[in-house]
Amino acid sequence: MTAVSAVQSALTSQTIETPSWAYGNSGTRFKVFAQAGVPRTPEEKLQDAARVHLHTGVAPTVALHIPWDRVDDYAALAEHARGLGVGIGTINSNVFQDDDYKLGSVTNPDPAVRRKAVRHLLDCVDIMDATGSRDLKLWFSDGTNYPGQDDLSARQGRLAEALAEVYARLGDDQRMLLEYKLFEPAFYATDVPDWGTAYAHCLKLGPKAQVVVDTGHHAPGTNIEFIVALLLRERRLGGFDFNSRFYADDDLMAGAADPFQLFRIMYEVIRGGGLTADTAFMLDQCHNIEPKIPAIIRSVMNVQEATAKALLVDADALAAAQREGDVLGANAVLMDAFNTDVRPLVAEARSSIGADADPLAAYRASGWAERIVKDRVGGEQAGWGA
Amino acid sequence: MTAVSAVQSALTSQTIETPSWAYGNSGTRFKVFAQAGVPRTPEEKLQDAARVHLHTGVAPTVALHIPWDRVDDYAALAEHARGLGVGIGTINSNVFQDDDYKLGSVTNPDPAVRRKAVRHLLDCVDIMDATGSRDLKLWFSDGTNYPGQDDLSARQGRLAEALAEVYARLGDDQRMLLEYKLFEPAFYATDVPDWGTAYAHCLKLGPKAQVVVDTGHHAPGTNIEFIVALLLRERRLGGFDFNSRFYADDDLMAGAADPFQLFRIMYEVIRGGGLTADTAFMLDQCHNIEPKIPAIIRSVMNVQEATAKALLVDADALAAAQREGDVLGANAVLMDAFNTDVRPLVAEARSSIGADADPLAAYRASGWAERIVKDRVGGEQAGWGA
Amino acid sequence: MTAVSAVQSALTSQTIETPSWAYGNSGTRFKVFAQAGVPRTPEEKLQDAARVHLHTGVAPTVALHIPWDRVDDYAALAEHARGLGVGIGTINSNVFQDDDYKLGSVTNPDPAVRRKAVRHLLDCVDIMDATGSRDLKLWFSDGTNYPGQDDLSARQGRLAEALAEVYARLGDDQRMLLEYKLFEPAFYATDVPDWGTAYAHCLKLGPKAQVVVDTGHHAPGTNIEFIVALLLRERRLGGFDFNSRFYADDDLMAGAADPFQLFRIMYEVIRGGGLTADTAFMLDQCHNIEPKIPAIIRSVMNVQEATAKALLVDADALAAAQREGDVLGANAVLMDAFNTDVRPLVAEARSSIGADADPLAAYRASGWAERIVKDRVGGEQAGWGA
Amino acid sequence: MTAVSAVQSALTSQTIETPSWAYGNSGTRFKVFAQAGVPRTPEEKLQDAARVHLHTGVAPTVALHIPWDRVDDYAALAEHARGLGVGIGTINSNVFQDDDYKLGSVTNPDPAVRRKAVRHLLDCVDIMDATGSRDLKLWFSDGTNYPGQDDLSARQGRLAEALAEVYARLGDDQRMLLEYKLFEPAFYATDVPDWGTAYAHCLKLGPKAQVVVDTGHHAPGTNIEFIVALLLRERRLGGFDFNSRFYADDDLMAGAADPFQLFRIMYEVIRGGGLTADTAFMLDQCHNIEPKIPAIIRSVMNVQEATAKALLVDADALAAAQREGDVLGANAVLMDAFNTDVRPLVAEARSSIGADADPLAAYRASGWAERIVKDRVGGEQAGWGA
Repeated sequence: MTAVSAVQSALTSQTIETPSWAYGNSGTRFKVFAQAGVPRTPEEKLQDAARVHLHTGVAPTVALHIPWDRVDDYAALAEHARGLGVGIGTINSNVFQDDDYKLGSVTNPDPAVRRKAVRHLLDCVDIMDATGSRDLKLWFSDGTNYPGQDDLSARQGRLAEALAEVYARLGDDQRMLLEYKLFEPAFYATDVPDWGTAYAHCLKLGPKAQVVVDTGHHAPGTNIEFIVALLLRERRLGGFDFNSRFYADDDLMAGAADPFQLFRIMYEVIRGGGLTADTAFMLDQCHNIEPKIPAIIRSVMNVQEATAKALLVDADALAAAQREGDVLGANAVLMDAFNTDVRPLVAEARSSIGADADPLAAYRASGWAERIVKDRVGGEQAGWGA
Repeated sequence: MTAVSAVQSALTSQTIETPSWAYGNSGTRFKVFAQAGVPRTPEEKLQDAARVHLHTGVAPTVALHIPWDRVDDYAALAEHARGLGVGIGTINSNVFQDDDYKLGSVTNPDPAVRRKAVRHLLDCVDIMDATGSRDLKLWFSDGTNYPGQDDLSARQGRLAEALAEVYARLGDDQRMLLEYKLFEPAFYATDVPDWGTAYAHCLKLGPKAQVVVDTGHHAPGTNIEFIVALLLRERRLGGFDFNSRFYADDDLMAGAADPFQLFRIMYEVIRGGGLTADTAFMLDQCHNIEPKIPAIIRSVMNVQEATAKALLVDADALAAAQREGDVLGANAVLMDAFNTDVRPLVAEARSSIGADADPLAAYRASGWAERIVKDRVGGEQAGWGA
Repeated sequence: MTAVSAVQSALTSQTIETPSWAYGNSGTRFKVFAQAGVPRTPEEKLQDAARVHLHTGVAPTVALHIPWDRVDDYAALAEHARGLGVGIGTINSNVFQDDDYKLGSVTNPDPAVRRKAVRHLLDCVDIMDATGSRDLKLWFSDGTNYPGQDDLSARQGRLAEALAEVYARLGDDQRMLLEYKLFEPAFYATDVPDWGTAYAHCLKLGPKAQVVVDTGHHAPGTNIEFIVALLLRERRLGGFDFNSRFYADDDLMAGAADPFQLFRIMYEVIRGGGLTADTAFMLDQCHNIEPKIPAIIRSVMNVQEATAKALLVDADALAAAQREGDVLGANAVLMDAFNTDVRPLVAEARSSIGADADPLAAYRASGWAERIVKDRVGGEQAGWGA
Repeated sequence: MTAVSAVQSALTSQTIETPSWAYGNSGTRFKVFAQAGVPRTPEEKLQDAARVHLHTGVAPTVALHIPWDRVDDYAALAEHARGLGVGIGTINSNVFQDDDYKLGSVTNPDPAVRRKAVRHLLDCVDIMDATGSRDLKLWFSDGTNYPGQDDLSARQGRLAEALAEVYARLGDDQRMLLEYKLFEPAFYATDVPDWGTAYAHCLKLGPKAQVVVDTGHHAPGTNIEFIVALLLRERRLGGFDFNSRFYADDDLMAGAADPFQLFRIMYEVIRGGGLTADTAFMLDQCHNIEPKIPAIIRSVMNVQEATAKALLVDADALAAAQREGDVLGANAVLMDAFNTDVRPLVAEARSSIGADADPLAAYRASGWAERIVKDRVGGEQAGWGA
């Protein structure tokens, strides 16, 4: 196998999960601009996700958000997905939108609210059983807005208790992915603000508890690829929520704001042996003003291109330059890969598995965008329901 | 007049405008938690604002947000306000919530949308005429989310054109306050991102165009009091939107996150001669999880306390230390004032004008909170309508 | 014991260690402005530190920096210190100024350099044996300036190896304090950039390895008191390097930039049971343009005042408000303490142990500043030797 | 002329000035690691700069820093430069390293210090007369470290006065480039912290006063290309100090930290008509651990590659997509250019003017690096002299 075909083979074995909520409406606290053709049901979201997979060939699963994607029969939903050529992926719990959760869910000072929240998380595991999902992704909006509002340490205790109960419920092949986020919607202190906090909890829970790195959830100046390298070294990197941002948590298309950073992240993934099924590569983003399906297609392509560049890094030359302390030489090896135009290579890889060389053009030509605008009339468009 | 009574006199002559929207529901993109008793109409917002003025004695005006506070007869609304003991203050334009504004209002590439937005701004001046308001506050959410989305320079041209048209419409005693904000809701480039941009536009417009400093709208690490000093020096400080934040634009109670910063800002205001009627001291914040009226009362008190501390700075001692290059001595003069507990002093000043020494206790004792919960049943609560 | 006397008793039992290097010259990469009277030897640094203790009564130990404070006989130096009324505290290792360390010390790709660095660390433990010091503080400037320059993961392995060797050398009553820092002097990736990395290493080493929180070493927007609460909960908070900053790592006087933050930190220390001898309260700052001894005295006072305010928080009222979800009430309890002018209280506490009510005035009156300028003529002033 | 040859022609007409100080030793406040072969005199710096020009063909001028490059006869130095095939470019004033400047230079509270500083600036104009330089670049380290240390507004007045005196001294074809910087070495308030402040001063001075954008001198999250677009629109962009950084002001090689940002900046330069001789494209960086000459060569190449990509943007397609509000389409036009591998194109452009297709390889092959190590023995290596 030549180097190029090895890269292509690695590329096509990497799968990127798309999030059901990215197909629905989203916005900021100032305004949600609704878009024509947006899905009204989980089934329609799966239809859109299936189009992304059809054109890219590497997006075979769709993450659900509960209760946004609540249905009566999850096994049937999974079956429906299979019929569309995709599968149900990660189950995302949502314990931030009931009025009860105003002051927190699993860390709420009120034990009754905590109980309710934990019950929801356990329900999510039931859903995983029904859908055959491996991963439960936990992101908590829990935190405080003002100093003194609640006891920071006590909240950690409540969190640990809730996580332990859910962890105990996991099946042998199921995992818990714990996500951290510096801020928003909590304004003063978030209960899982950084990788260290997530890591500390995962360590105590056991090997099925893993950290999720959302690329938009860090303080300014944080070196994300360092965290990736460390978590892989410690065998605690469960996966990624990809997106990008210029300022706060903007949820722009992955790779849109800093393609070099995405490349460095993927380089550390490869370097640390993380380009395997154990690392969940997920998108977690939303498209407020741009059309949603092509934005997701573009994001999938951006992740692939970053991966391709990272795969092209000449590992031997890099190791040699590093050994010799050749600062400029080592940096140049990395930059050579980054500066390469990998689009033809990725297009070829895509073609090799029967997907489209140019997924965006294929999507445009497919008429799907026009069709959903025409078909999805009436009903209530999916959204965050904030 | 003793030093203390001079401080008290200065304190009670400073008025702090409260924003109508802070009395309504608000939240994040994740969730708006509705509160019982929230106003359903502009009139009810004015009622709440009147309670803040009743207890604090220094919040005699209320800013409106159009169209959130749209009524048929603004003169009648102003009359209603007067009946409650308050007045209508600044008119805030809102050109960010129509579907047309998805890609911008006054900077939109589509001239028809720009026209619509300008017309709204002109309508706001009509409202000012009816209410007797002096200030039109302009904040634009305009910007772009992705590099390349639109032409940064062309957008400046469109902005300049719109501002010029509105400026020409202002009456002799009316002003335009131009607000800047680094980001949100635009994710890549905001059209008025910093004081420099606002200042450059104001310079070209003329003396009735002034810059508004919103304390939450800066990049991390920005020295806000420096900007205040500079704008006062250049006679371009129109006023403040006070609030506070730990991370992005969180709109917490003024002074809640960094009381020392608020003190430094007020010190520069006083130093630069800005403690006059020409500087509009406004709150621009929202209360997502805390009760709204007491949060505003507390914010008014926080601004007063910061002002009181700033008034206590020993100007002669400070100037002497600065002249001598006595770094620690000069800093100590400032810190002495900051470390003083001014609450008794401010309470006395409040009492001296017939307001409550402890406004929060007085509000609690007034039964207003219980009354609005009981009375304001049915109808639609005011909110941002995002 | 009344509440006030309990506070005073707690206050005077808290000791604050001053750093020998803060008495010497320091500056930025642009310029070191030398000051008259600066110590030329470790012994003279101890003299200055003794004056700080004389006036404040709570700074009985001095941290050393090796090799900046290299002497032939450390036991004699400790004896000398005792004669001056102070003791030798923490030993700080310095493996960043030899030419060999250009690409790192314990993480250097070259095993010979790593060996040299480890040997220095072991030498520092020898010094601790001689001085009777409990703590070895490890801060590494190790990192990389450019992506690709070295292997991030391999560097962690080298670091772990070095730490393990030094940990094994520690005596029963000795500890290793591992410090983290986001950036500077490494520009791209620092090998111990955050508390999570330090914590992960400490966990593997054992209970004598503890994390040090330097208040200036975080990304913008990091909630430091959260980290403090977490580390105390996990029994891994070894101590503090206090200083303050507005932007990057500025090493200004503790409490100078954000006194409210320092108060919140001290509140979490007290809440988490950290106001004990197991928490090392150290200053780590430098005084580039202000006179050094009074700057340190002021910093000690600032830490004390923040502690006093934190001790005044009404714990019962706070817990009650938190339990009831009373956001504003809980915040108000905290702010009441912060807004209190504790200077008289702290002055009294100081007097009660025979120190000066006003340490800065006492220092000025002592004539020490003039004396050292007159006496310390000739020789080479201490500095960082960068 | 084909599109490609137009790009090449534009590329080779862009010249990039290199800074004399980048050839000398530099470091951080923790350590300066000296390098073998570093110049000892301004003449030797010019030799090194000439090698950069020899290989790249687009670096014909060298900026001087006074007094670091002080010589007796500047006309002779210019003549010497010409003999080496380069010219003297911008004169950089340095008023931050005399002991007098501890509390500022042109903004110092002491009029005698201000006078001395202004005299130095006037001397720099004399030097410009002798060297034939067009531009005087002013960067002031002036600022304060602690709140209260000096009067922020008074310092602006002193600054304005100094600038006016220097401006009056400029010849008809000379310009003053005013540089801003958020922080460092001042820790609290810098006297020219942002583009707005520099712009406000330049406006008052006149058309020969222009703003310089140093890419490393902004708050986190600042959109630099927006500033570029605005300054070009206002005809106040004098030029750039290129470098890059991940955190604070790190002075890494231009384009090393965020090549996408550099591309966006160059796109706005081209869009705004700034790719002309009126815009000074300068490097301002230093090489602490990497060899200096190749680091500068690489930086020149990085600027060229960013320019080449920006030149490849399909302006018509972009304008059309922007007009239509096609967010993804417009972004895609930009990204297509960025994703192109322009190295062959730039290599060809370089060859077309007789420079080296691969300047780094040519430099390595030239033996210059070995020669200077051998030749430059003894004497004192150039450095910042901090």
